[in-house]
Amino acid sequence: MSNIMNVQVHLQSRPEGEATAGNFSLVEVPVREPQTGQILVRNHFLSLDPYMRGYMDDAKSYAPPQPLNEVMLGGTAGEVIASRAEGFVPGEFVVGTGGWQQYSIFDVQRAPDLVKVDITRVPLSAYLGAVGMPGLTGWYGCSRIIVPASGQTFVVSAAMGIVGSVAGQLAKHTGARVVGIAGGPEKCRLVVDEYGFDACVDYRAHRDEESLAGALKTACPAGVDGYFDNVGGTILDAVITHMNTFGRIALCGLLASLDGRPRPISRPNLLLIKRLLVQGFFVDDRMDLWPEGMKTLGALVANGQLRYRETISEGLASAPGAFIGLLSGRAIGKQLVRLN
Amino acid sequence: MSNIMNVQVHLQSRPEGEATAGNFSLVEVPVREPQTGQILVRNHFLSLDPYMRGYMDDAKSYAPPQPLNEVMLGGTAGEVIASRAEGFVPGEFVVGTGGWQQYSIFDVQRAPDLVKVDITRVPLSAYLGAVGMPGLTGWYGCSRIIVPASGQTFVVSAAMGIVGSVAGQLAKHTGARVVGIAGGPEKCRLVVDEYGFDACVDYRAHRDEESLAGALKTACPAGVDGYFDNVGGTILDAVITHMNTFGRIALCGLLASLDGRPRPISRPNLLLIKRLLVQGFFVDDRMDLWPEGMKTLGALVANGQLRYRETISEGLASAPGAFIGLLSGRAIGKQLVRLN
Repeated sequence: MSNIMNVQVHLQSRPEGEATAGNFSLVEVPVREPQTGQILVRNHFLSLDPYMRGYMDDAKSYAPPQPLNEVMLGGTAGEVIASRAEGFVPGEFVVGTGGWQQYSIFDVQRAPDLVKVDITRVPLSAYLGAVGMPGLTGWYGCSRIIVPASGQTFVVSAAMGIVGSVAGQLAKHTGARVVGIAGGPEKCRLVVDEYGFDACVDYRAHRDEESLAGALKTACPAGVDGYFDNVGGTILDAVITHMNTFGRIALCGLLASLDGRPRPISRPNLLLIKRLLVQGFFVDDRMDLWPEGMKTLGALVANGQLRYRETISEGLASAPGAFIGLLSGRAIGKQLVRLN
Repeated sequence: MSNIMNVQVHLQSRPEGEATAGNFSLVEVPVREPQTGQILVRNHFLSLDPYMRGYMDDAKSYAPPQPLNEVMLGGTAGEVIASRAEGFVPGEFVVGTGGWQQYSIFDVQRAPDLVKVDITRVPLSAYLGAVGMPGLTGWYGCSRIIVPASGQTFVVSAAMGIVGSVAGQLAKHTGARVVGIAGGPEKCRLVVDEYGFDACVDYRAHRDEESLAGALKTACPAGVDGYFDNVGGTILDAVITHMNTFGRIALCGLLASLDGRPRPISRPNLLLIKRLLVQGFFVDDRMDLWPEGMKTLGALVANGQLRYRETISEGLASAPGAFIGLLSGRAIGKQLVRLN
């Protein structure tokens, strides 16, 4: 395969404050041959996700930092084009952590998240979105932490994103009142019209927490029983103000702190007064549940009961710019890069 | 009974900032006769608890505010001296919410927390402390929320207080390493020598969070798996810094915010990065578990396996001053007022 060139995106420098496209570099290297136990995959899609911002820093986190001058970590979906691993044959489709590159080698015994996928009823790209890690995040937070019930009110922020839209649609299936929070009238309209939420609050239309809290109160006249937080910061503070006693908060995103500055929870006394549960989680911790979750989400997508949107940028060279756009909230739905 | 005078403490004004003894007034009224379904109790002990500070404000909270010019709410232990209620006879001892007064009338059908207690093996005052609401708070937070295990590290703040000392001793029984946080060398010494904690950090010896975090790191070399928080604020921030992945935090006190100012959680991003659980709770929500908890705690006290200290002030007139002292951390162990 050494006559085929692989295109990769490396992390060239760490951000000082906001990440920029200049932190990345495009590199060409020859494609390697798979060794015993390995497969070679031609990636069709690269997933861009907010968590990648955390890897760019050289800070103690839940995972080691992304090394400089190596391929950026990231989820990919593609086709097996050569296999020296039992159980994999060319022509099969797989999803895994292939990185920001056109071709990936997987050592199948050492790639716990590498899975073969069936693209006859679910599009390949969906395995990076509604039926992949982001969708599973929405599914886990909704069905295992918040557990909304009919008649309750469920709020989710970044509601137009894939995590938020999946969580909200699943909550809607339980009979809960579902209210989204999103940035801008266009996203809010889509959240209601496409995803069937009962209401959506445009946080950009509110200059301060008080104004935002007022809009939340209007949208949630019976208070908030469950909150799926993807953003933290002022929005989390505002929702906590409207939580009902014994409410549950699934904490899963840090979009409000992408410059690296943590944003406090202003009134933790309300966590006590209202006897709230707050649970931080990553769905990667429960990979034992992924088959169940993927089965559930795949069936819903195939049956048209779970909708999603994708924003697709073309070609690996567009990935850094698309990632910066994602961080600033420009993507509608799941941000992908098409590689083929 | 109208020839007997009852002494009461009323809330006369709401605090502006810190509570003062001047917010209270001492009032004398005749003792009423119990009506059908009621008992008259001569209180021997009044419990003073930090939660009472919250009731003094006219703010939306977990309970309606304490009305002005009425008897302050509070837990009491005493002897039935007259009964017109089935199942209660003079000479029996009861614990309930009798308020800051010498004599209380209980409508037994409408007093869900009124219980008869056996003082043959457990002292009456303990039913307001280690075997009462504060002890049950420690028991619930430890055994139902944090659930420490052998080899784990359990940290509790306000460790010399009755809630903290019960929680820590119960954690110690599970085989966990138990580290207290308390104010001053005397309290820290007692926590280790009397309650058998493995270590105790004196937060007053540390001027800033960084210094406190350093001391915590020394005391908890393997990190913190469970944290029973009674104080919030800087101490909560410092412990969160040292929590291990999948750690659990029981949030139950607000001692750091007693002037009414909430103190933020500075780095909620750590709740996500470490996948922490935070659960605010009041043991009053689980009165169904009180019989089980009281049985457990009573047996441990009777067998000498659960130790506690009391600070007792004499006479109802001393209650306001003792309460202010409690808020500023002057009490050692359970703060009581002796009324007989």
